[in-house]
Amino acid sequence: MKSVDFSNIKITGGFWKERQDLIRNVTVNAVYDRFYDTGRIDAFKFDKDSEIKPHIFWDSDVAKWMEGVAYLLVEKREPHLEKIVEGLIDLIEKNQEECGYFNIFFTVVEPQNRFTNRDCHELYCAGHLMEASVAYYQATGKRRFLDLMCKYADYIEKRFKIDRDTAFVTPGHQEIELALVKMYEVTKEKRYLELSKFFVDERGKRKEFRYDWCKESYHQSHIPVREQSEAVGHAVRATYLYCAMADLALRYGDKELKSACERIFDDIVNHKMYITGGIGSSRAGEAFTIPYDLPNLIAYTESCAAIGLVLFCHRMLLLTNDVKYSHTIERALYNGFLSSFSLDGKSFFYCNPLEVLPSLHKRDEELTEKTINMPITQRVEVFECSCCPPNIVRFVPSIGNYLYTYDQNSIYVHQFTESTAQIDGVTIEQKTSYPQSGKISIKVTGKDTTLYVRIPEFIDTYEGKTENGYAIFNVKNGETIELNFDMQPRLIEANPLVTFDSGKVAIMRGPVVYCLEGVDNGPNLRDIRIDKNGKFTEKIDTDLGVLALECKAYRRKPTKALYAPMSNERIEITAKLIPYYAFANRGESEMQVWSLVE
Amino acid sequence: MKSVDFSNIKITGGFWKERQDLIRNVTVNAVYDRFYDTGRIDAFKFDKDSEIKPHIFWDSDVAKWMEGVAYLLVEKREPHLEKIVEGLIDLIEKNQEECGYFNIFFTVVEPQNRFTNRDCHELYCAGHLMEASVAYYQATGKRRFLDLMCKYADYIEKRFKIDRDTAFVTPGHQEIELALVKMYEVTKEKRYLELSKFFVDERGKRKEFRYDWCKESYHQSHIPVREQSEAVGHAVRATYLYCAMADLALRYGDKELKSACERIFDDIVNHKMYITGGIGSSRAGEAFTIPYDLPNLIAYTESCAAIGLVLFCHRMLLLTNDVKYSHTIERALYNGFLSSFSLDGKSFFYCNPLEVLPSLHKRDEELTEKTINMPITQRVEVFECSCCPPNIVRFVPSIGNYLYTYDQNSIYVHQFTESTAQIDGVTIEQKTSYPQSGKISIKVTGKDTTLYVRIPEFIDTYEGKTENGYAIFNVKNGETIELNFDMQPRLIEANPLVTFDSGKVAIMRGPVVYCLEGVDNGPNLRDIRIDKNGKFTEKIDTDLGVLALECKAYRRKPTKALYAPMSNERIEITAKLIPYYAFANRGESEMQVWSLVE
Repeated sequence: MKSVDFSNIKITGGFWKERQDLIRNVTVNAVYDRFYDTGRIDAFKFDKDSEIKPHIFWDSDVAKWMEGVAYLLVEKREPHLEKIVEGLIDLIEKNQEECGYFNIFFTVVEPQNRFTNRDCHELYCAGHLMEASVAYYQATGKRRFLDLMCKYADYIEKRFKIDRDTAFVTPGHQEIELALVKMYEVTKEKRYLELSKFFVDERGKRKEFRYDWCKESYHQSHIPVREQSEAVGHAVRATYLYCAMADLALRYGDKELKSACERIFDDIVNHKMYITGGIGSSRAGEAFTIPYDLPNLIAYTESCAAIGLVLFCHRMLLLTNDVKYSHTIERALYNGFLSSFSLDGKSFFYCNPLEVLPSLHKRDEELTEKTINMPITQRVEVFECSCCPPNIVRFVPSIGNYLYTYDQNSIYVHQFTESTAQIDGVTIEQKTSYPQSGKISIKVTGKDTTLYVRIPEFIDTYEGKTENGYAIFNVKNGETIELNFDMQPRLIEANPLVTFDSGKVAIMRGPVVYCLEGVDNGPNLRDIRIDKNGKFTEKIDTDLGVLALECKAYRRKPTKALYAPMSNERIEITAKLIPYYAFANRGESEMQVWSLVE
Repeated sequence: MKSVDFSNIKITGGFWKERQDLIRNVTVNAVYDRFYDTGRIDAFKFDKDSEIKPHIFWDSDVAKWMEGVAYLLVEKREPHLEKIVEGLIDLIEKNQEECGYFNIFFTVVEPQNRFTNRDCHELYCAGHLMEASVAYYQATGKRRFLDLMCKYADYIEKRFKIDRDTAFVTPGHQEIELALVKMYEVTKEKRYLELSKFFVDERGKRKEFRYDWCKESYHQSHIPVREQSEAVGHAVRATYLYCAMADLALRYGDKELKSACERIFDDIVNHKMYITGGIGSSRAGEAFTIPYDLPNLIAYTESCAAIGLVLFCHRMLLLTNDVKYSHTIERALYNGFLSSFSLDGKSFFYCNPLEVLPSLHKRDEELTEKTINMPITQRVEVFECSCCPPNIVRFVPSIGNYLYTYDQNSIYVHQFTESTAQIDGVTIEQKTSYPQSGKISIKVTGKDTTLYVRIPEFIDTYEGKTENGYAIFNVKNGETIELNFDMQPRLIEANPLVTFDSGKVAIMRGPVVYCLEGVDNGPNLRDIRIDKNGKFTEKIDTDLGVLALECKAYRRKPTKALYAPMSNERIEITAKLIPYYAFANRGESEMQVWSLVE
């Protein structure tokens, strides 16, 4: 299957247009301002006398922001942003060493320690700079940044692959592997693809540096990658590695790599993924844990990991065209990813918990040693480790990437959003207010085309011609097809082995996971039992600008005794649910995705 | 109300006789052996060249064991134990300083730091030695140990109350306050009572030493004790303080102290006590937290805190004769306390969780930084901080203390167990296999007596003459009365505000809390739903020697999908429940007290 780059797709309205506008008008500037305030931008000046010590991953924070700017420029030039990026490239050019090396921390703070500490994000920063340079070249046609990064890539190849004189062989935090594939795609320099393959192939073949608080599995180095079957360790490192594995599987026709990717993906979606598409359930190591270990209150589910999962799924889609990868992209997009930024576009979650109990945060104020480490309850504008905000900035403008794949006369429609796409001489126009409505019209202009439209995961029965989960339409040039997916809210339960969700249901409407918030439903959400008949009324919440749901539910009567014989007495209430992605936009409040049912 | 000391009561059979025999035949020796192995016994030799460095609280560990031996000697002399105790007293006599000071750590390791660090358990150790000396004197009539401890108490009085030249005013770990009351009771030296009052009065009046990771509330020093209304901080420190407050309230007729104790007790039983009578829900600070914060999986619920709660309740009973204190004693006795030692009497829990999920322990093996700190899943023979095992040794032989109070011609029967008691010229004989059966016969010999028999908390309606929760019987000399309490198992729910128990029930039969164990019910107990009609079959489990229960219950069908539309399909199963106190006696296994109900 071939991919359709977002540069060939214009999101013209609806759900994602709103978000793209928000990123362009608010978020890209808000993230820049916070990066400027915190010294991340000025760090590129390499001022050794600066009072602010650059962090080992600051290069990557800014690089991801630059990549985001590049993606915004594809559709519409933004001179003030382009000027900032050019200024940063000036500094990169100025401060890059003759040999090609470029890293702020390992030039300004610890120049003596270059390529000695596997876990210091050195190659991770390099990877993000490379991705940014590719994006900027593709958006603007300007090669300077790309050339600088080619020089850096050449130097890395020399040191790691040719001279082999570095203190470690493979990066502690994967990222450069997938970046090198992009460098190859844009330069056609096979060496970059080979270097990516080198890093992927060598991983897990020897004991390299490891933290004293975790095992090699933390950075997926416990066994060679082709032997891996389980998603383990740091979830972002993992997904970035899996992306590169899928990239290489595709380009080398490497069946072992492909099948490792398939096994790992299945492990994630069958055992280790929240209903929101969030992954990495443990704060310890920001990591995957054991199957079915999906605690809601302490869900780690880093925003970057949700993005990483989408990136991985997209590559698997290109490799297999299996509808399940687009199902998972949709799940992550509308839930675990979307929750990561506020509706005003200015603040961010690093962790995206599925339950918030502010009283437990209050409990821990009395003791600095926390009972349980819980995610913060409100989004903030910047983090010390602020990888997520710029990842959002680069992700939303490139959302078009996930809409289509194609092959000869067949076009596959994976995601639904109002848009116009140019694909292989064909124009595809989607008209829809999805996910608010399940109605989608798709017009094909240019030539007769076979359309394969993904039937969403929440559709149990589809009437019409289907194949492998796609609805098939032979569409004449100029013809429009209509679909209307049932968006009736549904009560969903987790596998019985997910102990943290036992006895509970989540409510989904189409691909959107809903939640209860204290601000709508009062305190003590855990005592609310959703009526098991699951009849919902839809209502626009004008305050949040989202489609809310109301349903019958029950609470127990307040009592004084701490323990008493079971009572069947109930107070009937109307529970209000809002999309999970919109939680925590009205002040600190209880929240839960999983509720009792009765 | 007057108390009836256990020395006037002989437990003649039944439930507690078994436990008393176990302590006498097994536990007292097992604890001694582990204390010997770990150097706690030899530490009394004050060998400065020893390779084993004594810990600051080792004096107290051994003192509690000595107190336990003393209680065993009341009923039956045990020459080998008495010899060990005499040997220890020899060492105490030999190593006590001329001034009266005695502390292993602050003589052998840090003699320069005496009375400088509020938190080093120095006065806590002194208190336990005093309690042991009182017990040994009362059991044997031998005064030597008591005299040594009087000398020490005199020295403490001089330094802390008269000269006031110590670096802190009140102990960081309360204990000496209640010990000094015992010293007063046996010596009639008012100075000891006054010193206890001094320590209690001065607490919370100034900023003293505090840990940097908690507030003054950790050792109940945030405000003066008479102003306190909430149970806060370290649960063992708290209950030992509350004991002394109640002791002093009784002896001084101090209404402010009494009412503080009443407020605190109500706070505990209405907001902060597990259904097992366990208290102190947080590992952080081994402490009470906010109301209704009663997590099951990470319940801290130290064995010593359950004992501390009983000791506090008993003093409140003497102060008020309110039946609620005996209710709570019964709850703690049969559950949160009893779970602390294995059925073979050789191993112990420090924490007594209400849920065990071994898979989550397995999860954390991959990472040395734990996701959540959970209690151990199996009892062990000794802890580094081994306060609980000797506390059990001293508690079980003195269980008779909680059976009766009396006043003029009235005798109050608080707990039910086969026994013969001598009370104020009356002999009371209880015949019962309680709590297995609810049948109790009580024979009164000596004179006509009004018996007030506590109606247990689990009895909703009692037919007969009652007053303030007691059934009243005017019993003639030689007459026997019969009671038959309904022991039908019941489904109990927690207050709706206890978020961790929402949607769940616990099963209690009489005063005994039951639990599900994986060894009986297979894995994934959280998916088991107890049938809401609550019909139970009783069956003796001969392996454990306990009364087990069976009931109808349901599981969901195993499925592959991680998420799916809610299904009402169920597999009917027979769930087996065993008394909570008997859990973890058949290897590591899941366990839960609170189960779903349907």
